[in-house]
Order: sequence, then structure tokens, then C-alpha cells
Amino acid sequence: MRVFHSTLMKLPTFADVQRAATLLIDVVHNTPIHTSRQLNALSQATVFLKCENFQRVGAFKFRGAYNAVANCQGNDPVIAVSSGNHAQGIALACQILGREAHLVMPKPVNPLKMAAVKGYGGLVYAPDSREEGEQCGMDLAEKLHGTVIPAFNDHFVIAGQGTAALELVQQVPEMDVLLGPIGGGGLMSGTCLAAHGVNPNLKVYACEPAGALDAIYSVQDNRVEPQPNPQTIAEGLRTSVGDLTLAVLRDHLAGFFVVEEQEIVEAMRFVYERMKLVIEPSSAVAMALLLRQEPDLVGKRVGVIISGGNVDLTEFFDHIHEKTTHS
Amino acid sequence: MRVFHSTLMKLPTFADVQRAATLLIDVVHNTPIHTSRQLNALSQATVFLKCENFQRVGAFKFRGAYNAVANCQGNDPVIAVSSGNHAQGIALACQILGREAHLVMPKPVNPLKMAAVKGYGGLVYAPDSREEGEQCGMDLAEKLHGTVIPAFNDHFVIAGQGTAALELVQQVPEMDVLLGPIGGGGLMSGTCLAAHGVNPNLKVYACEPAGALDAIYSVQDNRVEPQPNPQTIAEGLRTSVGDLTLAVLRDHLAGFFVVEEQEIVEAMRFVYERMKLVIEPSSAVAMALLLRQEPDLVGKRVGVIISGGNVDLTEFFDHIHEKTTHS
Repeated sequence: MRVFHSTLMKLPTFADVQRAATLLIDVVHNTPIHTSRQLNALSQATVFLKCENFQRVGAFKFRGAYNAVANCQGNDPVIAVSSGNHAQGIALACQILGREAHLVMPKPVNPLKMAAVKGYGGLVYAPDSREEGEQCGMDLAEKLHGTVIPAFNDHFVIAGQGTAALELVQQVPEMDVLLGPIGGGGLMSGTCLAAHGVNPNLKVYACEPAGALDAIYSVQDNRVEPQPNPQTIAEGLRTSVGDLTLAVLRDHLAGFFVVEEQEIVEAMRFVYERMKLVIEPSSAVAMALLLRQEPDLVGKRVGVIISGGNVDLTEFFDHIHEKTTHS
Repeated sequence: MRVFHSTLMKLPTFADVQRAATLLIDVVHNTPIHTSRQLNALSQATVFLKCENFQRVGAFKFRGAYNAVANCQGNDPVIAVSSGNHAQGIALACQILGREAHLVMPKPVNPLKMAAVKGYGGLVYAPDSREEGEQCGMDLAEKLHGTVIPAFNDHFVIAGQGTAALELVQQVPEMDVLLGPIGGGGLMSGTCLAAHGVNPNLKVYACEPAGALDAIYSVQDNRVEPQPNPQTIAEGLRTSVGDLTLAVLRDHLAGFFVVEEQEIVEAMRFVYERMKLVIEPSSAVAMALLLRQEPDLVGKRVGVIISGGNVDLTEFFDHIHEKTTHS
């Protein structure tokens, strides 16, 4: 059985993000920056959204997944345990790179995400729980002589995720602050490396839902402190940080902001209704700070990583469907 | 009382669209083009979406409104009768140009649209019906010595709407076909002028919901033939063409495509879920043709005007809110 990447790896650096960017060129979308007069007025800041909802597979996760698969030696099968965007990212990366992909997607699984993974040619397993999923991943690795690519706590995944912020600092000059959501910390650790590689004075803050506060305590106490029962609509942010992401975050983060559930929903609504962007709840977490006019952001040039747009709209469209049929 | 613009006007030309473009520069957004591998695969065409959902006020309507207000002599009040995007466009144009705006918004009115109009400093009237609204508009014109700007059947409005297609043909070379939704025909007549001014071989098709078929018959019979009781989720397309738009459409349109309600909802869902764009139902009408692999579009380079993104998401977010509160 192969060991997980991370146990072999040293901490990623800015050079690793730059190498990832070179590898990813022509494979990822250099996603656009969106701005809004209304958002600037409401936040009293100048805000730049890096729209990773327009990334391939609908989320930044494709960046890290591709970088990790491309750096995975040999031609053995690749395995990932994820019900979300990481599974899609790995499946697409493997399709592009001609690798066999095994995706363990513990229930509950959004059927659209499972269909997307299958559409990329991934082989899907659907165990009943996260724990069974982890075991299933390890069993597959042993049986297939494959490599498990973790969703965030991995040298190459972190470096790949950093390429979104690297593009952002190249697209928008002279920002003061970068914001992004924090779950496992892959996005934010990569963002820290990219931001400080270009401008050591850029302040990077992680935004965490009040119902899933593990990163803030983990960084404070310098050890991984999982939240046993996280409760948030931002499903991507329910995971806890890992040892690699924690080490990078401790060195770089300027601090944390905590956001309530109601604020997340309101911010999401603002982005849909005013900016016409479909984003997932995780991406609304940072927006909420701006809409509540967080004092530390007032007057600043603020970059926000909009992490993705994979949200289940089944109920919304079923409702429209029904209205159409009965009218 | 001032007369309506249109009765004084001769047909707009490509030169009028070009003049409008010059006037609108620095005022409108040159909206981005979005593409999708999945859309190209499903449609077997190469598709370019001109994203006017990212336009100011969330719809192409701002273009025509601004052009009309800017060409409206003197400093008299401006009046419009509209419950939709035209009202917002006129209100914002008047705010920018320092004109007094009176918006007659017949019920039912989306409260968000009314709030937006008031936010731009517009004075709002809310009569009970469309008929009362028209009367109210004429009364205001007489009382205030103001000018009523029609939503589509107007020389300057048509020319302004054409600037979206003018940008599109400049952004995307060598298209074969342009598609857009048709209600009153302001967008499509402007699109025809712009497209054929640049490339007379470009085929322009209008897309009409099966439940609101007036334009297709009006063009066929060369007279305005309103649909007495239009039934479509695409509320912006329930209106009938006017004499000016009809005259332009007759000269330029390559033809019509008709789309069913179910197809509109499915196309809308595709654009939200796969392309992460919030669009209004009207904008999904042309998308439906692509998703059903309309034979005339297969193998072609197709431009689509995504008309806007002002859609009422109240029920969707109320539902999320509820789930959040009870979790």
C-alpha cells in the first residue's frame, strides 16, 4: 500500500505555487475578476472577486487536484475520498492526464456531483459514512497499488490551490487584504504562500462559519482541534485543518473573521441577485464580512476568492417547473 | 403634452447604433463573453454568450434607456411605463444625466425592482393594470411637460440596444449566427442593425416562447398582431412588437425559433448549474435551442445575447433561510 502524500512531504513554498502555475497554464481557466458598485458602496471598500465558480468543475479544487495528479509518479491508479468538489477535480485531472481515477464518495452525495464524476470517467464508490469512506480509500490503495490524494492536507494540493491567489494578485494591483473561506485550509494555505510570495505586506484573513470553528482554535493553540459536530450550510467548510495546512496558516495568516449562518445566506442572496453569480454557500462567507462593513476592511482594497459555484438548485427548479406546468 | 418618440421617428440604422455606442462608452459595461465546453458538446456548436446579465441594472435595457434619455432634448422630466428592466434603466440613466425620472410600474411589481428604481432616485407610481399605467404615463407627460420613453418601440431605444450585439461581433470573430429572445423586439431589431452593419451574412434569428407567439405572426403578415393572452414564464417576452421594431425585423431577420416552456426551464437550470450564471427566463429561450441541438445551429459559431439576470429568488432564499434556522 502507498502512503498518503502528506506524510512524505515538506511544507510547500511560494516556489511550489509558481511551479504549479506553470504546470496548470492552458489547463485551468484564468478566471475573471468581478466588481460591483453596490458592493463597494455597501462595504465602503473596493472589492475584487476572483471568480473560481467559473473554474473547471465549478470550483478552485481542480487546481490542486490537477497539480497533485500531475506530480504523482508512475501510472498507478489515483484514489480520492470526497463527496464534493475534490472528487470532481481528481476525476477531471485523471481524464486529462490519462490516469485511472477511483472516487470514494461517502453519503450523502449530491447526485449531480456523482454524475459529473462519472462523466469524467471516474469509478465511483458510495460508502455509508465518512469513516467507511476513509477505510475504503485505504483498501483500494492497497488492492490497486494506487495513491490516495487528500483533499487539502497535501503538498501539491496546497501549491495548486495557491495559483488562484497568484492570478488574483497579478490581475489586481495594490490590494491591502485577501479573504477566503476556510475548511481544511488547502485554499487558504495556498493563498497565503502566493500572496506573501508576491507582497509580504498583503494581509490574508480566513473566514470561518460560527458553526464550524476549528481552524481559529487550531491556529491559536497550534494543534489540530476538530469541531466534533460542525453545523453550517457551508458544507465545504465542515472539515478540520490538517498538519500541513495548519503549519502554513500559522506562519502567514493575519487573523480570522467569524460569520453567522444568517449572514452567509444574506450574502449569498446579494451575490445572486445583484452580481448575477451562482456561488456556493462557502463562497458567501467572506462576502458576509464586506456586507456587514467589517471595520478592518473599510477603505481597503480587498480581494476575495469566490471558491466555487456547485450548489444544489433542484428544489428551486422543481418549484419553477411546477409553476410552469400548472399555469 | 409631448408625443411619444416613435411617432416622430424614422427607422434607426447601423449609423444610429454606432452613434449610440460612442455615447454609451464609459457608461455601460462592455460585458464579457462566456463559453462552456459542455454547452459546445451538447449543442454540437461553438457558442458565445454575451452576458448582459452583468450589465448595469442587470439587463441590456440600460443601453437603450440611456441612449434615449441622453437624446431627449431639454431638461424636462422623463417618464416611462414599465414594471421591469426598462424602468430601472430609465431611472439609472436619469440619475446619471441629472434628469427627473417618473416611473409608472403597473402591478404586479417585483419589490426588488421597485426598490432598485427608488434607489436610483426615481419617482414611482403603481397603478393596478397595464391600461391604467399607460393612461397614467400620458397624464404625467401632460401635467409635467415630460417625455414618455417607450420600452422598445423607439428610435433611440432600438439603437441603444443594438450596442450589445455591436460589442459581441467585435469580441468574437467570424460568427455564423446570432440568437436572442424576442418580446417587443427592441433587442432583436437593434441586434439586426448592428450585426448586418458589420457582416451582412450573419444570420440573426429571434427566439420566441410558444406561449407568446406574436412576433412570428406579425413579421409573417407584416402587421402588429398582439397575442391576447400570452402565457410564458419569460415575463419580458409577453409584450408584442411595435411598428418600428417590426419594420426593422422584417428587413433583417433570417427567421424564428419557437421554444416550449419546459425547454426554457431546463435551459435556465443548465446555465445556473453548469455555467454559474444567474439569468432570467427570457435569456434561457435561445439557450433552449442549443440544448435541443437545433439542426440549423449544428456546426455553427453561434452568438447568444443573454438579455439579463433580474429574477425573483425570494422563494429560493426563504427556503434556505428556513433550513438554516431549523438546523
